[in-house]
Amino acid sequence: MNRRLLTPGPTSLPPQVRIAAAKEIIHHRSDEFLKVFQEVREGLKSIFQTRNEVLIFTCSGTGVMEAVIVNLLSPKDKILVIKGGKFGERWADIGASFGLQVTGIDVEWGRVVDPNLIEKELSRDSQIKAVFTQLVETSTGVVYDIKSIARIVKETEAVLVVDAISGLGGEYLPADEWGVDVVVGASQKALMAPPGLAFVSLSDKAWKLVEESTLPRYYWNFKEALRMQKNNQTPFTPAVSLICALRESLKLIKEKGEDNILKHHARLAEATRKGVLALGLKIFSEAPSNIVTAIELPLGIEDKKLRALMRDRYGVEITGGQGKLKGKIIRIAHLGWVDALDIMAGISSLEMALSQMGFKVNLGEGVKAAEKVLSGSEE
Amino acid sequence: MNRRLLTPGPTSLPPQVRIAAAKEIIHHRSDEFLKVFQEVREGLKSIFQTRNEVLIFTCSGTGVMEAVIVNLLSPKDKILVIKGGKFGERWADIGASFGLQVTGIDVEWGRVVDPNLIEKELSRDSQIKAVFTQLVETSTGVVYDIKSIARIVKETEAVLVVDAISGLGGEYLPADEWGVDVVVGASQKALMAPPGLAFVSLSDKAWKLVEESTLPRYYWNFKEALRMQKNNQTPFTPAVSLICALRESLKLIKEKGEDNILKHHARLAEATRKGVLALGLKIFSEAPSNIVTAIELPLGIEDKKLRALMRDRYGVEITGGQGKLKGKIIRIAHLGWVDALDIMAGISSLEMALSQMGFKVNLGEGVKAAEKVLSGSEE
Repeated sequence: MNRRLLTPGPTSLPPQVRIAAAKEIIHHRSDEFLKVFQEVREGLKSIFQTRNEVLIFTCSGTGVMEAVIVNLLSPKDKILVIKGGKFGERWADIGASFGLQVTGIDVEWGRVVDPNLIEKELSRDSQIKAVFTQLVETSTGVVYDIKSIARIVKETEAVLVVDAISGLGGEYLPADEWGVDVVVGASQKALMAPPGLAFVSLSDKAWKLVEESTLPRYYWNFKEALRMQKNNQTPFTPAVSLICALRESLKLIKEKGEDNILKHHARLAEATRKGVLALGLKIFSEAPSNIVTAIELPLGIEDKKLRALMRDRYGVEITGGQGKLKGKIIRIAHLGWVDALDIMAGISSLEMALSQMGFKVNLGEGVKAAEKVLSGSEE
Repeated sequence: MNRRLLTPGPTSLPPQVRIAAAKEIIHHRSDEFLKVFQEVREGLKSIFQTRNEVLIFTCSGTGVMEAVIVNLLSPKDKILVIKGGKFGERWADIGASFGLQVTGIDVEWGRVVDPNLIEKELSRDSQIKAVFTQLVETSTGVVYDIKSIARIVKETEAVLVVDAISGLGGEYLPADEWGVDVVVGASQKALMAPPGLAFVSLSDKAWKLVEESTLPRYYWNFKEALRMQKNNQTPFTPAVSLICALRESLKLIKEKGEDNILKHHARLAEATRKGVLALGLKIFSEAPSNIVTAIELPLGIEDKKLRALMRDRYGVEITGGQGKLKGKIIRIAHLGWVDALDIMAGISSLEMALSQMGFKVNLGEGVKAAEKVLSGSEE
């Protein structure tokens, strides 16, 4: 049975990327590696839509979230965090762990944040040094209106930090054009590389904060990383094989065109939504993202049982809810190396599994609705 | 031209490991991954020769060095660091970055540390909470006498932390038997996996320090990592493909037998030393390790030119000196997936390159001496 990974990271890999991951290890101080690293640096700048350097770390995405906190801030600094899901809470938790004064804007899970609330908080307290948010709050499937948020934060002394770990490359985020100061990304999502690398870009405004920051750091030292990267090096042995794999996926993205890839994600997302609506299910997210669709579980359908059925009988792996959404939603990702027929596989397995569990669906209706979108007859 | 990597990490990978690195990505919360992770946990315990859990992090080795500092200590805590090379200095630098009071024992680069000096410092200042050293100081090729050091530290309140990043699996280090409290290791050395994973084991004495420590941490949180690992999970998305690759290499190590692998490294090291001595070169290290041989550069032979010749003409990659040894030594590693004939290739290319550069060698003499060791006629 073929396995299909419709999870919001790690995602499946294109064959070329897997082959690159299996090549002979090259030494990280060799000329050969330097060339690979330079290509990756350039490819990432293009994905981040920034002229700033994109720093590359060997770690999970959360590692670079921590890195941003310890490089930009000092103990007792005030930060504002949009808390609309598990990953918003993660910003708050990291900030609190490092002794920051964290003000949270609590957003009902599944809803978007109202940018005016951010404006209000920033004008109420001019001491706030940074605003932390997600591009996509992966736990709720919601995409935030970063353009409006950036317009507000730009007018203040604060910097805007966007965790785009799941969204980068799948959702529109022109960092420089919108004025997003700090963007955090990772390898295992729309970038179609294995997990183990995370990235961060910083504006001049953000680099000024780095100069003032006093939190201790060593592995995460941005200034040292920048200094080394300018020579196509990293301070410490990087995950060489992952960087070689990433080079291949960045090549693929460039060939296909970044705009086309954004459109591809939008189309798959639209098809997924239409498909699940046609089955009588409800979309959980107020502003559904293009990378993952969160779906309310119908009454009487147990999350774990549904996912086990889809996985064990049909080979399709989706995810459930996280934190307080555990057991309440399922999430189907359409992220990275996923095509139209993978989406059909996802919806088809969902309708069969629901039907087997006694939920009334008209078999084929979800697929039909998705086909209309993906064949262009409903565009 | 075949490329041969005789560098002290990253090292070459066995074909099975490279194939495993190229497999379809599996989800890190799936049962399939849980089984892989459990195997890796068990394999690592065996390599570390410990009954303690070995925590697995996605990062370079230096990441886990920092992790040890922030999990065991508090601001202004006193630590003792053996500074006999670049990596000893790294312990001191990380400690200083996090506001510790660092006392260094300066050891001339290339020499071993005298354990009595450690005893003296510990009895002079009973406030010292931890002693930091290397198993192999990779920058000088020296292996330290950890058994004697452990015997001393064991009698005090301090814990002993050994950076075994380069030595683990290639040098004898029975953590529990010798009473080493904390051992740090990484994937890309004798473990024959790609770089990007690092490991740490902690004794009960070390875990007590974790309870008292107040330095901030989030990504590096040992208690959280331990809690998750007991369910074969990690707190954050791990480098899945590297963990799958590591499972394969741990299987290979188990099949071959860990003692045999230690003997293999010792034999290759002995052959390398005999080979370079036969060429009229000098071993730089007072106590040469079994994983890397540091060799004094003869007068008039320029480091970069020699290494470029070996690399570009013969495909053999070795490393030069680091820090203050830059230009003064070369280092040939015999670490990980390296066999007898790889060593011949290394010595052969060295003799040819030296000869081309005008250094008087009798071609074939180095290889001959190494062959005597490796064919058993000199054992």
